Amino acid sequence: MKINEDTKFLIVGLGLIGGSYAEALSKKDFYVSAIARRPETIDYALNKGIISEGAANPDERLIAEADIIIFALYPHIFVEWIEKYGNLIKPGTLITDVTGVKSGIVYKISDMLPEGVEFIASHPMAGREVGGVENASSEIFAGANFVVTPTDKNTEEAIETCKMLGWMHGFSRVSCLSPEEHDDMIGFLSQLAHCIAVTLMTCNDKPNLQKYTGDSFRDLTRIARINDVMWSELFLLNKEKLLESMKTFANEFNKLQTAIENDDVETMRAMMRRSSERRILFDKKK
Amino acid sequence: MKINEDTKFLIVGLGLIGGSYAEALSKKDFYVSAIARRPETIDYALNKGIISEGAANPDERLIAEADIIIFALYPHIFVEWIEKYGNLIKPGTLITDVTGVKSGIVYKISDMLPEGVEFIASHPMAGREVGGVENASSEIFAGANFVVTPTDKNTEEAIETCKMLGWMHGFSRVSCLSPEEHDDMIGFLSQLAHCIAVTLMTCNDKPNLQKYTGDSFRDLTRIARINDVMWSELFLLNKEKLLESMKTFANEFNKLQTAIENDDVETMRAMMRRSSERRILFDKKK
Repeated sequence: MKINEDTKFLIVGLGLIGGSYAEALSKKDFYVSAIARRPETIDYALNKGIISEGAANPDERLIAEADIIIFALYPHIFVEWIEKYGNLIKPGTLITDVTGVKSGIVYKISDMLPEGVEFIASHPMAGREVGGVENASSEIFAGANFVVTPTDKNTEEAIETCKMLGWMHGFSRVSCLSPEEHDDMIGFLSQLAHCIAVTLMTCNDKPNLQKYTGDSFRDLTRIARINDVMWSELFLLNKEKLLESMKTFANEFNKLQTAIENDDVETMRAMMRRSSERRILFDKKK
Repeated sequence: MKINEDTKFLIVGLGLIGGSYAEALSKKDFYVSAIARRPETIDYALNKGIISEGAANPDERLIAEADIIIFALYPHIFVEWIEKYGNLIKPGTLITDVTGVKSGIVYKISDMLPEGVEFIASHPMAGREVGGVENASSEIFAGANFVVTPTDKNTEEAIETCKMLGWMHGFSRVSCLSPEEHDDMIGFLSQLAHCIAVTLMTCNDKPNLQKYTGDSFRDLTRIARINDVMWSELFLLNKEKLLESMKTFANEFNKLQTAIENDDVETMRAMMRRSSERRILFDKKK
């Protein structure tokens, strides 16, 4: 499946990411249809002009007519959807997703699909503290990473098409990782970061702390506003890698704690110097 | 000591904060002199017009002529300075500081000062990832907190003058806390946050992580670029409160870890919901 000007996209699930994809693709004059649970979501998207057609149920025609289907659903709903309606997808269709964890999903979905339907998984590493199609905007992809996570089963063509999709959505960086490498990376860079933010936000409820909060604490807890349904699901789907990252962090934190207890200035300073040097690598490219 | 248009300020130490204070006060047409270790620092500040006069040694005349002296030095250098040169400060002078911890400093300094010199401590809760007078700018105080930390020994007049100074520098919030309340608050909101950022930055050096970093990880590690000399000193000066905060955090982190290990979705979701609700309190006022 190569993308050309006649390529028809179907987006299943019109939340923040699905809606933002729809906007990005419609802006580029592609034909975009959508399936969403709530009729109001479809109405909203039609009114905003970010889709051309939509249905509040798994409409057979829309599914059959799509060349590329993008699933922007919670992981378990994605799996249930394919179980129930996967047979409606016509051979030759390419499907991709937005799921934040990969190894627990990719192989399962691939195995359930009809012959001739290829699933090339991807993860748009973008988001906001607020969800829903009302907050959708293709601008959230600027500066962000799009990761394609192919398996041995994927064709070169599907991989290239999916990478192109990343660029079309407006991501600043498009790359490929195996599902396992992806989950390892995301367990540390994203899931652990969310665990830390939630912990910091809930561990101390002395009154009036907010009166003295500076930018440091605000930055560390920005992502503490979190969708509990989605993230608890993502954590458990990547349980092993996440727990590994949590242990790595807790050990290092304990090392710093011991250094402070023992007035061990040299260990503290060595950690801080290494931290300062390493952080430069993570600065945003201007 | 009340501030009027003839009030003369002396700033001892022209780093990021001292330099930014000098700029803020000079802009408001006050007479500002400075003492800094390096002659180049004084030359730079004179050329930039952020001080009117300066010396690279503890100049007796500048010290004697000042109505208000602001010490913007590392904690131990502040203490050493007062030990060596405190006797040069004339009675009637008001002194304040910028030290990031209070109980370990405030009483010690007060006890060393000559009769008639009042020390009213304060903490400008502002900073940047880069230091030095070259990066000084009074703009760093916009949106930030200025905390005055009086003791029983302070006069009402000195407290009011110090609060006024906070507003004059351009802080967005000026408040009073006891040295002990201050250290408790800062141990959690600032020092713990820095410990977490440093730990997160140093605990995993798998290559190429920076290629996939999103805003979450960047936000959590912004303050991982840290002045190791200053912060190791500040940590140890507030050792007890900081260790208490670290333990509180580690216990809660362990609770979340256990919930994930046990597939305990309800505990995870309850933490996330509480975190989301509480984070709203900490949003920046627009």
